[in-house]
Amino acid sequence: MAKLWEKGYSLDEAVERFTVGRDYILDLNLIPADAVASIAHVRMLASRGLLEDDQARALEEELRRIAREGAAGRVKISREDEDCHTVLEALLTERLGDAGKRVHTGRSRNDQVTAATRLYSREALLAITGDTLTLVERLLDRARQERATVMPGRTHLQIAMLSTFGLWLASWAEQLLDDLELLQAAERLNDRSPLGSAASYGVPLPLDREMVADLLGFQGIQNNVLAVQHSRGTLDGHIAGALAAIAATLGRMAQDLILFSLPEVGYVRLPSALCSGSSIMPQKQNPDALELLRSRASLVEGWASQCRGVVRGLPSGYNRDLQDTKEPLLRALATLREELAVALVLVDRLEPQRERMLEALNAEVFATDYAYQLVLEGVPFREAYQRAAGDYSQRDLPDPGEALARRTSTGTPGNLNLEDPLQRLAGHRKRVGDGFARHQQALKNLLGEEISLLGRQDPPGEDSSREAPR
Amino acid sequence: MAKLWEKGYSLDEAVERFTVGRDYILDLNLIPADAVASIAHVRMLASRGLLEDDQARALEEELRRIAREGAAGRVKISREDEDCHTVLEALLTERLGDAGKRVHTGRSRNDQVTAATRLYSREALLAITGDTLTLVERLLDRARQERATVMPGRTHLQIAMLSTFGLWLASWAEQLLDDLELLQAAERLNDRSPLGSAASYGVPLPLDREMVADLLGFQGIQNNVLAVQHSRGTLDGHIAGALAAIAATLGRMAQDLILFSLPEVGYVRLPSALCSGSSIMPQKQNPDALELLRSRASLVEGWASQCRGVVRGLPSGYNRDLQDTKEPLLRALATLREELAVALVLVDRLEPQRERMLEALNAEVFATDYAYQLVLEGVPFREAYQRAAGDYSQRDLPDPGEALARRTSTGTPGNLNLEDPLQRLAGHRKRVGDGFARHQQALKNLLGEEISLLGRQDPPGEDSSREAPR
Amino acid sequence: MAKLWEKGYSLDEAVERFTVGRDYILDLNLIPADAVASIAHVRMLASRGLLEDDQARALEEELRRIAREGAAGRVKISREDEDCHTVLEALLTERLGDAGKRVHTGRSRNDQVTAATRLYSREALLAITGDTLTLVERLLDRARQERATVMPGRTHLQIAMLSTFGLWLASWAEQLLDDLELLQAAERLNDRSPLGSAASYGVPLPLDREMVADLLGFQGIQNNVLAVQHSRGTLDGHIAGALAAIAATLGRMAQDLILFSLPEVGYVRLPSALCSGSSIMPQKQNPDALELLRSRASLVEGWASQCRGVVRGLPSGYNRDLQDTKEPLLRALATLREELAVALVLVDRLEPQRERMLEALNAEVFATDYAYQLVLEGVPFREAYQRAAGDYSQRDLPDPGEALARRTSTGTPGNLNLEDPLQRLAGHRKRVGDGFARHQQALKNLLGEEISLLGRQDPPGEDSSREAPR
Amino acid sequence: MAKLWEKGYSLDEAVERFTVGRDYILDLNLIPADAVASIAHVRMLASRGLLEDDQARALEEELRRIAREGAAGRVKISREDEDCHTVLEALLTERLGDAGKRVHTGRSRNDQVTAATRLYSREALLAITGDTLTLVERLLDRARQERATVMPGRTHLQIAMLSTFGLWLASWAEQLLDDLELLQAAERLNDRSPLGSAASYGVPLPLDREMVADLLGFQGIQNNVLAVQHSRGTLDGHIAGALAAIAATLGRMAQDLILFSLPEVGYVRLPSALCSGSSIMPQKQNPDALELLRSRASLVEGWASQCRGVVRGLPSGYNRDLQDTKEPLLRALATLREELAVALVLVDRLEPQRERMLEALNAEVFATDYAYQLVLEGVPFREAYQRAAGDYSQRDLPDPGEALARRTSTGTPGNLNLEDPLQRLAGHRKRVGDGFARHQQALKNLLGEEISLLGRQDPPGEDSSREAPR
Repeated sequence: MAKLWEKGYSLDEAVERFTVGRDYILDLNLIPADAVASIAHVRMLASRGLLEDDQARALEEELRRIAREGAAGRVKISREDEDCHTVLEALLTERLGDAGKRVHTGRSRNDQVTAATRLYSREALLAITGDTLTLVERLLDRARQERATVMPGRTHLQIAMLSTFGLWLASWAEQLLDDLELLQAAERLNDRSPLGSAASYGVPLPLDREMVADLLGFQGIQNNVLAVQHSRGTLDGHIAGALAAIAATLGRMAQDLILFSLPEVGYVRLPSALCSGSSIMPQKQNPDALELLRSRASLVEGWASQCRGVVRGLPSGYNRDLQDTKEPLLRALATLREELAVALVLVDRLEPQRERMLEALNAEVFATDYAYQLVLEGVPFREAYQRAAGDYSQRDLPDPGEALARRTSTGTPGNLNLEDPLQRLAGHRKRVGDGFARHQQALKNLLGEEISLLGRQDPPGEDSSREAPR
Repeated sequence: MAKLWEKGYSLDEAVERFTVGRDYILDLNLIPADAVASIAHVRMLASRGLLEDDQARALEEELRRIAREGAAGRVKISREDEDCHTVLEALLTERLGDAGKRVHTGRSRNDQVTAATRLYSREALLAITGDTLTLVERLLDRARQERATVMPGRTHLQIAMLSTFGLWLASWAEQLLDDLELLQAAERLNDRSPLGSAASYGVPLPLDREMVADLLGFQGIQNNVLAVQHSRGTLDGHIAGALAAIAATLGRMAQDLILFSLPEVGYVRLPSALCSGSSIMPQKQNPDALELLRSRASLVEGWASQCRGVVRGLPSGYNRDLQDTKEPLLRALATLREELAVALVLVDRLEPQRERMLEALNAEVFATDYAYQLVLEGVPFREAYQRAAGDYSQRDLPDPGEALARRTSTGTPGNLNLEDPLQRLAGHRKRVGDGFARHQQALKNLLGEEISLLGRQDPPGEDSSREAPR
Repeated sequence: MAKLWEKGYSLDEAVERFTVGRDYILDLNLIPADAVASIAHVRMLASRGLLEDDQARALEEELRRIAREGAAGRVKISREDEDCHTVLEALLTERLGDAGKRVHTGRSRNDQVTAATRLYSREALLAITGDTLTLVERLLDRARQERATVMPGRTHLQIAMLSTFGLWLASWAEQLLDDLELLQAAERLNDRSPLGSAASYGVPLPLDREMVADLLGFQGIQNNVLAVQHSRGTLDGHIAGALAAIAATLGRMAQDLILFSLPEVGYVRLPSALCSGSSIMPQKQNPDALELLRSRASLVEGWASQCRGVVRGLPSGYNRDLQDTKEPLLRALATLREELAVALVLVDRLEPQRERMLEALNAEVFATDYAYQLVLEGVPFREAYQRAAGDYSQRDLPDPGEALARRTSTGTPGNLNLEDPLQRLAGHRKRVGDGFARHQQALKNLLGEEISLLGRQDPPGEDSSREAPR
Repeated sequence: MAKLWEKGYSLDEAVERFTVGRDYILDLNLIPADAVASIAHVRMLASRGLLEDDQARALEEELRRIAREGAAGRVKISREDEDCHTVLEALLTERLGDAGKRVHTGRSRNDQVTAATRLYSREALLAITGDTLTLVERLLDRARQERATVMPGRTHLQIAMLSTFGLWLASWAEQLLDDLELLQAAERLNDRSPLGSAASYGVPLPLDREMVADLLGFQGIQNNVLAVQHSRGTLDGHIAGALAAIAATLGRMAQDLILFSLPEVGYVRLPSALCSGSSIMPQKQNPDALELLRSRASLVEGWASQCRGVVRGLPSGYNRDLQDTKEPLLRALATLREELAVALVLVDRLEPQRERMLEALNAEVFATDYAYQLVLEGVPFREAYQRAAGDYSQRDLPDPGEALARRTSTGTPGNLNLEDPLQRLAGHRKRVGDGFARHQQALKNLLGEEISLLGRQDPPGEDSSREAPR
């Protein structure tokens, strides 16, 4: 029986496969960030006399080259290399000899991978926040346009009350702004330098942790070196968890639109770019991309839950388990970037079917209006409610525009008060702009050029040479 | 077969049981908050001419009475009542007639339960944050005392490097301060008035949502009324998720202490109040409470995950599903309050065994020190590392105090830099103090007296008359 | 600030609250099972000469009384008692003196609680399986009746192909039969006696574990005593996980029916017992119970996930953490029983709207039929597909009955092949019947009467005297 | 700001990326299985006269070639291709023209991907079960060898009672046998042919579903075609969930061994192949692979939870969401295979330190023995317990071997009763052997040669040409 399942490698290779995991693939994403962090480390070592100036210069130059090569997808990592940190030191030692053997002074792979991951995540989170804000802006734009587009509001999925498509659009904008509050908290925790914590307990060298933090554009250091270690995995879970909140919001918005685009409902026509046709039924509009927005919410939540699960109950100090939160974090970041691109197309190209929405307003929708008219005439609410129930269906439908005009309270269909979310949007924009400027300035200062740490996502022509990873 | 499992009630009763769920029990917790929110609503209705002044006064007086009775555990809710909102309106109608029938003007059970839950959660979150800050303070206090208490720092659970008990204590303080960032984001989202959103789409009445928000001490209204509905469940998940982060931190701290108190390790002696003895082995010290801190982390995470699961993919507008996030939210809040009380006892009464820690410092702990000494003498790091490996075990152990003094970088065992967490602590204290003052002022203004919305947790003498809920 | 949140009890009481948790409430459910298991234990002790015969007889008589009182809700457990095992031994000692002090010979609270939980779960699982099978039977009954009721089958929620309401009904029956396979595996693992494992390592007494297992109607003992301990929590997670699979199936069925009962779709009329009306819109039909079937799927999954979380990474041998899987297990069992009652009402009283279903069959539904007609005429599939796309909408709709008749393959709308699920149903019925007979026989043998271990769920008149648990 | 994050592709490409997801990579694993299933489909079409015999022969020959090429990693799938099904049909059409256009007759990508996944999973599950059984066997072997190796048994992680290393080893074997019960249930559900269900509602052609099932070695068809669709995702979750149970068991075993190998405890010496050394501390033994067994338990659980999350609340009939359970399923299968290889190395090469275990037996370990000695002399248990507590520490330690001999009950340290797990092992072996023979026979019959559907996991030399997937 064994023969069929022979793995084609020895047991010891199997152990290597297991322990290396997918690090040697995932780390291709972290090379530029690792090189950047290393430049800051090298400068600090030189400033503290722990490295000769000429060695520092040589290392820095070489690290810049590695950053560029890494960003261009030209650095290789084999499974035997294990990770990008080994490759980086090997390249430096191979090219520079003695200087390369000194670059690891005062750090361990622990704070090194944490630093690289935080720099990478910082840029990814700025990008994600930026895209979310663009999405919020579009939603608010369209909400303003559709503020008088009346439609039935549903409760229990049943037609219930007067609403507008504008209220619906703006509601998602505001929910996304809420989600960004969580993400912002995670971003702040991420934006602190871990360097100098080494393998959890610092080192007996006079490192200048603040200088490194400053060079890398961090808002400061994360103080306690053992707390830095607690953060590994934990912070990954916080970030992935906040991303899961955004994904959940996008998934619910998609769910609504799937229902709104049912042939029987027909409130919206979806952008064809997001639908698969059927070769046999050309007018059929399968909302594939929206269904995937719905399912990806569960994937992102699953990745967050993996991060949380890995660290729950873990003893303090470094444990190898922490290797296993890297992939769920990177997957969550990449997925959100893709989701937001799709959501932007969705919101941009969505076509509300205003006639269908209007036609759907029936007597029930206005039953509440009638009851409240009685209330305004002095009838106690509970009695008004019962009287309305008795005869609302015999009454003429009121003019929807007039009914809408009676919703004057803040935030209701008749008074969307878009200034409120617009102000929140502006606040976030300012914050992201500042954060991005700081990030970019640090990279430019260290690398001498502008570069994205996120790298090229998929080098052309290499798709087909790929093995069969799962 | 059916006979044995007869449920003792009809199928229609079974349906009632299923739909009411545990609301009629859980809502006992929400009565004071519901009454408070109702007073603000009543005042607003009167100010807008939607209620006669004398009716408003009568309602307010009666609501104050209900708040007091509710806080004292003297309001009953039967399964037929379903929830506290029904009971509240019934009591008002029974006692005041016509005025009672008017109290529901301009609201639905939807924004009513949301308002009550947010007020209740606000106080609970202030209490939890306050207790967490107290815990942080004790940890920092003790960290200062133990800043020179050397102990082995572990990686992979193996003895690895020089550390101090002070570093360990302070690390948890800083991690808790991190966790509070997440909680603060959730608190801010919670601290907005949902009232006026009614059943998701507002009402055709000129309600003054801002006045109500102001009376209730909220930081403002949550603007878009449909977004208020999106918040139900979602926000519960955010709160429970942030509480799960704190619970996870407490669980990991407990895990460390369970290991530290192994007889073979013996770094700490646990407070006897947290341990169960064994009647047969008096000196045995079973760390029961710490094990439960560990397991509760999974419970709280499970409650957060229930909240997230219930709303994932839910269509917008009210759906009955939302009833099911109330219990996990309330359980998470109550559990954290209990956990923090236990953690305070733990940190207060923990006895480090300094001798045992000192004895555990072996040659390996100082191998890194030796390597770095060579680095300082100019040997490249990788070579220093290899040379140290060759002969560290033959060398005399250095003086731990001197070794500690060589850790000068910020946040390392030799330089805990407690000012940093103390400053963060002070910032949170200020925030909680302000929030609490605002909360208390609002309650006093509305109720005419100080009262806790959290109520008595467990009326004496009633334990044994309880049925068998699961 | 502290004053407001004063908990009204000391820190040490807080610790007690925390460690006892809800055991003193939950254990009210386990008293009869605990008493039954104790009787078997006592008989075995006597048979091995570890207990005098007269003492054994006295204990047995008293334990029968406790079982009856427990089932009737008349045994009290206070928080100070902690759990039902303490109460049981205290009652025995109080009433019988010396004999009471001997009942704990050869066991610990560990195997005692495990035994009680397994007996309770066994009956609950038999009840749940029985109810699921009844539901399957009703679904198959109705499927047979509706086998010719044509309706559009949907993919991507869009109208796609010819289907029948019968196919839809039978599909859930078969899915439930699948779910029962998982549950059956968990049941088998549950149906083994843990007694004799004591606190994880057995005891130095010649206990007859097989005799106890036999008396309790277990299929045998769980052999390795340390494996018994691994099972605590783990098995709870397996059971709750299998229940979550059933809950998920019911939730999806409910989701479909919520969509089918949309006013715009109107394929079914829901039983009014499961809907809340609206006092103002009498014809509005809010599918409350169905929405709760949907949300409870997430609750049950959350409980399963709590069980799994608590034991993940737990060291072997007893740890106090294991206390925390009791509640999620009991909640999952109770919730499923309620869900199944609701689902039975749903399936029994559901009214398909056959006219609406028929009207919904449009040209698209038959496009595939047309394509396959071309295939049968020899056109290659891909070409047939394209030709059909070009002109299907111009063609007359075929007769639905004839189209249905062309679905002859097994399991398709035209050939439901209900014999297959009926046979599976019969197999499960046999198994449950045998299991129940064995369970009942054991109880009767030990207690001298028929009694349900599940007890009364809710003693009348006590609802309103309840405290405010969360 | 946009420039930095420019994705290097248009919005429409972003949508394609999002919707294709990782299918074009993952499907490399499914090519052989897809080809095999297609051969069976082709034979059936020919037998029903829906395909000319010569076309069928040509298709079959070509499909065999594709199966071989796919297994050797020589078939390419580009992102534009989307998935393996498109590639397969394109290759057939390109090579055979008209015949290729007929292969999709009577199926859709829905039942096609389900069939391929089930065949792939079937072989993977047989392999996993086989490896688990080998692990069980080794554990039982070693348990027999170590049946007299006394060691302290722990509760609350504290030293508590007499145990043996044999009991510990056998306990994991029995727990794994338990886990296999769950997996077996999932395997049975997997082992049914979905073909003929098409896009959820069958097709109007006289397909012979049973013939296809038979050719593919399935135990039969899955009857109801809509139930087949319910199974997608659901079954993936069941399989991943059962694998998570095994992973959790391995994680707990690893956790124990991490603790047992603490320098202070020293009960075992771990295989050096599973530990990373430290270049500076050669005798340090970091249990890396064991820590990863611990963390992978959370990863596998996360994948299971993704599957469950994706399908929860999903409407019936095909939805695109179902694409997203493929990766978590494949990852869970691949991870378990790796985990089991590591666990085998672990169990094979583990070195118990018998002296250290023996030395650790202290007075406390025997306190219970002393109490039970008093019980045997007639002292009531509670009194014996108290008397033992008073003076056990003054007494001489008994001979461990004699104490062990007093544990005579089944399954206790003195009587492991290994026949029980050995018998269970034999039963599973028989089942797996039969299942494998059936699987292999079907493949051989269809392909004319033996081939593993699992393919080569990692073609040599291609590692370094890989892009940077996350």
